[in-house]
Amino acid sequence: MLVGAIEAGGTKFVCAVGNEANEIIERVSFPTRTPEETLTDIFTFFDQFELAAIGIGSFGPIEINRDSEKYGYILSTPKLAWKDFDFLGALKKRYDIPMEWTTDVNAAALSESKIGASKGLKNTLYITVGTGIGVGAIVDGNILSGSGHPEMGHMLVRPHPDDHYDGFCPYHGNCLEGMAAGPSIDGRLGVAGKDVSPDDQVWDFIASYLGQAIEAYTVILRPERIVIGGGMMKVPGLLDKVRTEFETLLANYVPTPPVDEYIVLPGLGDNAGITGALILGNLCLA
Amino acid sequence: MLVGAIEAGGTKFVCAVGNEANEIIERVSFPTRTPEETLTDIFTFFDQFELAAIGIGSFGPIEINRDSEKYGYILSTPKLAWKDFDFLGALKKRYDIPMEWTTDVNAAALSESKIGASKGLKNTLYITVGTGIGVGAIVDGNILSGSGHPEMGHMLVRPHPDDHYDGFCPYHGNCLEGMAAGPSIDGRLGVAGKDVSPDDQVWDFIASYLGQAIEAYTVILRPERIVIGGGMMKVPGLLDKVRTEFETLLANYVPTPPVDEYIVLPGLGDNAGITGALILGNLCLA
Repeated sequence: MLVGAIEAGGTKFVCAVGNEANEIIERVSFPTRTPEETLTDIFTFFDQFELAAIGIGSFGPIEINRDSEKYGYILSTPKLAWKDFDFLGALKKRYDIPMEWTTDVNAAALSESKIGASKGLKNTLYITVGTGIGVGAIVDGNILSGSGHPEMGHMLVRPHPDDHYDGFCPYHGNCLEGMAAGPSIDGRLGVAGKDVSPDDQVWDFIASYLGQAIEAYTVILRPERIVIGGGMMKVPGLLDKVRTEFETLLANYVPTPPVDEYIVLPGLGDNAGITGALILGNLCLA
Repeated sequence: MLVGAIEAGGTKFVCAVGNEANEIIERVSFPTRTPEETLTDIFTFFDQFELAAIGIGSFGPIEINRDSEKYGYILSTPKLAWKDFDFLGALKKRYDIPMEWTTDVNAAALSESKIGASKGLKNTLYITVGTGIGVGAIVDGNILSGSGHPEMGHMLVRPHPDDHYDGFCPYHGNCLEGMAAGPSIDGRLGVAGKDVSPDDQVWDFIASYLGQAIEAYTVILRPERIVIGGGMMKVPGLLDKVRTEFETLLANYVPTPPVDEYIVLPGLGDNAGITGALILGNLCLA
């Protein structure tokens, strides 16, 4: 039995076909164009197979509330051609099979908790720090979602006393994403993060914001493990700075595992999203 | 069929017996003494009835993780006689019936979501602002708990620019509880909150911290409604200040209900905790 998986990104789509053991058998990737053009690419790939279900991890915001009349839609994205597009509806029209969708970070959180760095744990987080900051949570084995999916990157943070940057978030200015995602480096220093020395003080600022956020996620959700990835976490030494900040801020108030087992890098790397979509597809059939 | 309920507070215990409809039939309350003395009071009351189950909402921190060898224990409380006391074990020894326990705020969150101000909603929060700040969350109809119960009052907040208070939390100084719970008023002004004019600027500070916290809880948990109670919320005008702060800070980033339906006072008042314990007891039998 074959299951389809889609990782829908703002710049790139990945489509895959896998089996019941969540192994990817075949995959393609193509640039994100208009919904119509992109769907043509998706159909060209999936039409080759007899699929039993499809799982999707998508860029957001998306409507995941089944009671909403916009269930299955991409919502107010800055990618205007996709705004208010009934993505799940368009897929359902072509393939009348079970489908489940969630955000890209939720899909990654799911795969890391099933077969990745937090394998076997029922309460986990997946954080990605890149052009934005996205977080997916697994609570008691299930993807956390309330009236909609979390937008945890937009919690507010306490400015570091030596950091005079105002943040780039168009909604909140200096929320976590506004102060710690990739564009904040360019906003402060005029160059991209990859061109900044690992010894620059800016990484202390970033670590203080990520440490604060992880302190909050810890007292709010009490996860067993937190996986943190994305381009920025490749900066040498940053992970350790984040761990140290977190430990200082939490001050042992609630028990957590040793910090190097609690805050860890991804196990699935770039495959976390597409694998999570495949797992989601298989879960439709469970 | 009768079910027992215990609301275990740091200064007062409430015990009740109720029916399957979660109606309280009889109740008593007595001061919290040593574990042994308090248990005698509990037994004296419950021995009169043939109970099918007991639900407990307790002061914390408590061990709610069934895999822990300390499951059922009260953990590192400043009430030293209760520290590391096997509360659930002591009850089980006397009554060999199904029992379930959680924190007092979780019990209140449960009752508000089942029959109180957030009745019928599956994703809700209950916040109490008193001598401390406690928060319980219902996620998809169940009490949120990860590796342990949340301690959401200990998330860090951004100091208000005019507020020069350092906070009273012995662990974090200026976390939410340290800056916004009852003792912070006395810490700033030398008098209790009840003796401070509702026009005092201190309430703007308190509202800014509670607004920040609710912004974070909103983007992290996406609740449908937030019930906020406790002694401090009786200050005239404070609820509206909190609503305004929250709206300003969230900046409409994710959709929420109109703020006066989203952030509301409790429906069950002082009965929220004991009623939640009764519901929990009934859930053991479901």
